[in-house]
Amino acid sequence: MNIQDLDTPAILIDFDTMDRNLRRMATYCAAHNLTLRPHTKTHKIPEIARLQMQYGAPGITVAKLGEAEVMADAGVNDVLIVYPLWGEMKWKRVAELAKRANVSVAMDSFHVAEGLSQAAKAAGVEIGIRLEFDTGLRRCGLTLDAKSIGIAKKIIELPGLRWEGISLYPGHVMGNREIRELDIPLENAKLDRLYGLLDSAGIPCPVVSGGNTPAAFESHRFHGVTEIRPGTYVFNDRNTVDAESASYADCAVTVLTTVVSTSVPRRAIIDAGSKTLSADALLSGDRKYFGYVQGHPEFKLEDLSEEHGHLIIPESPAIKVGNRLRVIPNHVCPCINLHDRVFVVEGDQVLNEWKVAARGKVT
Amino acid sequence: MNIQDLDTPAILIDFDTMDRNLRRMATYCAAHNLTLRPHTKTHKIPEIARLQMQYGAPGITVAKLGEAEVMADAGVNDVLIVYPLWGEMKWKRVAELAKRANVSVAMDSFHVAEGLSQAAKAAGVEIGIRLEFDTGLRRCGLTLDAKSIGIAKKIIELPGLRWEGISLYPGHVMGNREIRELDIPLENAKLDRLYGLLDSAGIPCPVVSGGNTPAAFESHRFHGVTEIRPGTYVFNDRNTVDAESASYADCAVTVLTTVVSTSVPRRAIIDAGSKTLSADALLSGDRKYFGYVQGHPEFKLEDLSEEHGHLIIPESPAIKVGNRLRVIPNHVCPCINLHDRVFVVEGDQVLNEWKVAARGKVT
Repeated sequence: MNIQDLDTPAILIDFDTMDRNLRRMATYCAAHNLTLRPHTKTHKIPEIARLQMQYGAPGITVAKLGEAEVMADAGVNDVLIVYPLWGEMKWKRVAELAKRANVSVAMDSFHVAEGLSQAAKAAGVEIGIRLEFDTGLRRCGLTLDAKSIGIAKKIIELPGLRWEGISLYPGHVMGNREIRELDIPLENAKLDRLYGLLDSAGIPCPVVSGGNTPAAFESHRFHGVTEIRPGTYVFNDRNTVDAESASYADCAVTVLTTVVSTSVPRRAIIDAGSKTLSADALLSGDRKYFGYVQGHPEFKLEDLSEEHGHLIIPESPAIKVGNRLRVIPNHVCPCINLHDRVFVVEGDQVLNEWKVAARGKVT
Repeated sequence: MNIQDLDTPAILIDFDTMDRNLRRMATYCAAHNLTLRPHTKTHKIPEIARLQMQYGAPGITVAKLGEAEVMADAGVNDVLIVYPLWGEMKWKRVAELAKRANVSVAMDSFHVAEGLSQAAKAAGVEIGIRLEFDTGLRRCGLTLDAKSIGIAKKIIELPGLRWEGISLYPGHVMGNREIRELDIPLENAKLDRLYGLLDSAGIPCPVVSGGNTPAAFESHRFHGVTEIRPGTYVFNDRNTVDAESASYADCAVTVLTTVVSTSVPRRAIIDAGSKTLSADALLSGDRKYFGYVQGHPEFKLEDLSEEHGHLIIPESPAIKVGNRLRVIPNHVCPCINLHDRVFVVEGDQVLNEWKVAARGKVT
């Protein structure tokens, strides 16, 4: 089938570009002796998770327990849930999952660890745990102080849990290369302090898990990191291009869209709005525009209604209702999350249709 | 079942609040002799569409052909697709749908009308059409001039189509009451000009379809409007409260969420991020914050990660991991669109679970 035979809007994954992205990250991690545990929140597609493992990942990362269950059902049997899961319902489900997969959870409170410990004991399984520390994003993660080390010591002693080490998310180390050059030494000072505290308390850290996509290829410069969990690198998007960690040629996902109206002067309306692309603003710079029209830097995707993309176009453009365009989204993760299926393409040929199997697993 | 037995995050619809919203709009429209054709993009749930028709709507509005098909399958057999559908694949599907439902399409180009005409002829059906004019939103819609009237005259003559009238979307008439008071006379001047042009050309307009939620209860003040298509009024949200067309007590949808981390000082992290609430910014004012925490005006939902909501909380709040909160989203339409199911509640009791059946029908 040819792309022209697809109705729009449709998510296209250029297989070769994705494959190159996957191999490049796998090669980088191997060269620097880093474990690659990709965050599959970006794609939510078991076929891609299996490819990531084929290229050397020992397991994957997810944000939701429901995603972990879908991935395990699809044969991906080593899953880190990097989320502080709360409540009896979830703890029991984690323990059930641990009967058929190697499961770890990253969290930042004694209560969550205690809940997991009791569920693990009751089910007769072992659940891996990693303790999350905050080095500056101010989201989850314990503060770098003696009180937190006290919590770590209590957690290590809980039965039913397998202590794996610590988890970090340097989501604040973003921006372009120049900004990161200033951030990395600051981050390392904090990491060194944390390692000092843990060491004094005799807490071993076989795993120090960190890493995001924008700074992924600089991960070896972060002190002590043994594992990274990039997600977006599989596809890249306008954000990663803006962060100078990829180029538009590295963007594997485009949204195939049709011009549906040119009635209003200097506007072209496409059938991709916020329910197709997501309303995520660009993370850096002037934060303007909602995507990049491939091959048409002169078109500006100025606004999104739910089902309309508002393109500002030059005065006399050769653009008509029925024309097709391909849009690279600002943030590919929430974009994929809006779709039930994606089309895998090579050039203009449609190779495959994949289900976004872990989409909608909100709990 | 009690709300406490639901895992989070979960979409809750307070039935009584929704029912009151539906009745209030139906009563308003009946009092002013306006046809109410609710836009079901907000809920995408056939059970609610049927309730809207039970309260007097002769049919519904959708943005996507796939939504129309789901609604028709569920017995909602009068559907306006207010979107300029393009392409053979869609035109044939519309004609197929017209065999089992009363279908109309709003569009703004001769090419779309011609495609629908040919598909209707081939299938031996009739498709209703409405021509869209732009009065200021600058999205879809013909300009108010002689050239557009020429297009209208050509479209009226196409076989297989049933001319119903014109479609408007006054999405630019928003803001709070004070702003709308200034906008309405300007809008009426444009409408009067349009009616003059159509009248001179002898084009009848049995239907003049307009209306959005923020200005819905002022629809009778727009000259000549016979029908309105509000969507959000079924649930309301932070945007409609901000536009002074509803109060928080009129918001029927809340996202039930759990506090999962309080490790970072003056923050509480909830399990509702942009993949649960949507990243839509507030439409007016300072555009700050991503939702309103019911009963807690002192909590500010400052930022969203994909699966984390970042609440800024006062210095010594009585808030702990495991606490539950209910969040009113900024924009309820893309929020519902992220979920496969919703829970219908009355007080703390869960009455029902409804499938968001028309979600994901992107084409």
